[in-house]
Amino acid sequence: MAFGWIDEQAEARRRAGLVRSLRPRPAASPLLDLASNDYLGLARHPEVTEGAARAARVWGGGATGSRLVTGTTELHTELERELAEFCGAEAALVFSSGYAANLAAVTALAPHGSLIVSDAGNHASLIDGCRLARGTTQVVAHADPEAVRKALHTHDGPAVVVCDTVFSVDGDAAPLARLAQVGREYGAGLVVDDAHGLGVLGDGGRGAPHAQGLAGAADVVATVTLSKSLGSQGGAVLGPARVIDHLVNAARTFIFDTGLAPAAAGAALAALRLLRREPERAARARAVAGELHARLTAEGLAAVRPDAAVVSVRAPSPEGAVRWAAECRAAGLAVGCFRPPSVPDGVSRLRLTARADLTGDQLERAVRVIRRTRP
Amino acid sequence: MAFGWIDEQAEARRRAGLVRSLRPRPAASPLLDLASNDYLGLARHPEVTEGAARAARVWGGGATGSRLVTGTTELHTELERELAEFCGAEAALVFSSGYAANLAAVTALAPHGSLIVSDAGNHASLIDGCRLARGTTQVVAHADPEAVRKALHTHDGPAVVVCDTVFSVDGDAAPLARLAQVGREYGAGLVVDDAHGLGVLGDGGRGAPHAQGLAGAADVVATVTLSKSLGSQGGAVLGPARVIDHLVNAARTFIFDTGLAPAAAGAALAALRLLRREPERAARARAVAGELHARLTAEGLAAVRPDAAVVSVRAPSPEGAVRWAAECRAAGLAVGCFRPPSVPDGVSRLRLTARADLTGDQLERAVRVIRRTRP
Repeated sequence: MAFGWIDEQAEARRRAGLVRSLRPRPAASPLLDLASNDYLGLARHPEVTEGAARAARVWGGGATGSRLVTGTTELHTELERELAEFCGAEAALVFSSGYAANLAAVTALAPHGSLIVSDAGNHASLIDGCRLARGTTQVVAHADPEAVRKALHTHDGPAVVVCDTVFSVDGDAAPLARLAQVGREYGAGLVVDDAHGLGVLGDGGRGAPHAQGLAGAADVVATVTLSKSLGSQGGAVLGPARVIDHLVNAARTFIFDTGLAPAAAGAALAALRLLRREPERAARARAVAGELHARLTAEGLAAVRPDAAVVSVRAPSPEGAVRWAAECRAAGLAVGCFRPPSVPDGVSRLRLTARADLTGDQLERAVRVIRRTRP
Repeated sequence: MAFGWIDEQAEARRRAGLVRSLRPRPAASPLLDLASNDYLGLARHPEVTEGAARAARVWGGGATGSRLVTGTTELHTELERELAEFCGAEAALVFSSGYAANLAAVTALAPHGSLIVSDAGNHASLIDGCRLARGTTQVVAHADPEAVRKALHTHDGPAVVVCDTVFSVDGDAAPLARLAQVGREYGAGLVVDDAHGLGVLGDGGRGAPHAQGLAGAADVVATVTLSKSLGSQGGAVLGPARVIDHLVNAARTFIFDTGLAPAAAGAALAALRLLRREPERAARARAVAGELHARLTAEGLAAVRPDAAVVSVRAPSPEGAVRWAAECRAAGLAVGCFRPPSVPDGVSRLRLTARADLTGDQLERAVRVIRRTRP
């Protein structure tokens, strides 16, 4: 029978305690949210939701076509201009998701005969980009510039180094400046996914490349999401204008995808303007993360020191992580639960996000619940 | 220098007349639109744009996380339930784009050791799905069930037949019923992309699988977009509940992507309800396409008989197609212009879409402009 093998896989998942299911949330959730990627607390901000509503009214429910046909509105161009300016890049190109932006950047910048040097901890979308690209991928040890150097040393021809700026699972940052330096020694480009850096790192949330003096560099391309700090949906590639022109002409997930919905562009633009006006939100997210880590560590929990707004806490097993997260939820606290196959190292953990708008009381309550429910 | 090879490619594109650039449109375009995929004219419908605006207000600017963490709202579930019911499928799963839905369906349903039989005319997103999947892909002649049979005959193990229901470039339909029959003889599943069928084909726009008696079949999986007939953004996979459960657990573009923005879910849901209430929109889109084809053919133009709402007209060359489209635009008519590498057969053409809300006068004007500007 067609798809018969699915049942065997489902049974294996059940036995391993790795079944995932969806848990629809109501509009007004009673849970304290330390699970979402809404780092700046902007997804429900009235300026952001009004930005979405207004854009839908003015521009329509959808972009109606590929960005190259009817799917580029003046709103998309406005968002691209302001995003590029904010991050210090020459140009930007907006996609329907960060996943699509990463597929585009990696595939379009790694042609036949090129080498991709990819960090072992990279996000699934970068990995899929490597698999789709015509170049050859060499996976190197996590956050290890010397491993990158060795890989580049073996290759003659175009090369790109690809990594997250902040790794989603453990919240640790990549050694960007050293990676860029190694790349330059070999004439390699650097493609970084700043999904968890934009809005959190750098002056006023301008992101990790800006923080490391790499914004506007001719050999650096950054991707971002509009769905985390900016409280919307979508992604973007930021870089030199010639690279962005190249993506317009060569990136399949740009050419063959419907443009981002106006409402999402409008929400992201409103969030971006709000962040320019209230730059302290970025520092506040980092401070909340530091505070959360300090309190969890003081309780003897195995929390990883956060480089941005993600705080990861080790769990003893996949089942233990699931039970821990469920007990937090029962106590009114939503936390992320990462386990195989979503974790590159096979280690299950709770994943907490430090929203800029968490109060001291909420932080205290969160730590209390996590401590009390620990396996 | 990093990315130095980009300039050579750009120069080659310039020489070949294949440079693409973005043309941002204003909110109130003076052009008559025969270029978008807004088949039912719903993208600007007040019920649809209000659906988007209301959802943003109630649910926020973004979904805030992966569908498996915080990104599933009750609104997503409502949309999935109504979509599945409308199309006659057991279950549905919504994605941030049709591209992501196709990557998910193909990769998750073609494991190691399986065979993917892929139509030569398939959309880029299905092709990328084949390239990412662990199974082996065999590309077969366009719309040729006997070629599919030959491919399946050589293989022992799980297999899927993958194709568009309506091919985007020429607007021709796949021989779905015969493909399903051949697949069944070999126990192969059928994965079809109904992006251009939903809202246009089948009873009241229920799509191509419904029209062919394949809705609800245990061995058929359909993908759809929310960005065409439904005037929004996003995609969905429709199929047996066990297949949908499998995608929730195994599809990387589901697990590692932020959920669809509430505004997009709200717009799609409003459009779907509107279509249920006004089912004649689907037949009207088909009638307009037939009328457009008949008039163009009567003028001696090489138009392909449409099976849905896309009417393709051959152009003599890529440059000729570009010039033709530009002259249409100068005369107030927006048409699509497809040329390499967006066309599998290398033939450039104008691509016209027959919106359900085009008036007789608009149709006449469109045909007049296309005839007058022909190369």
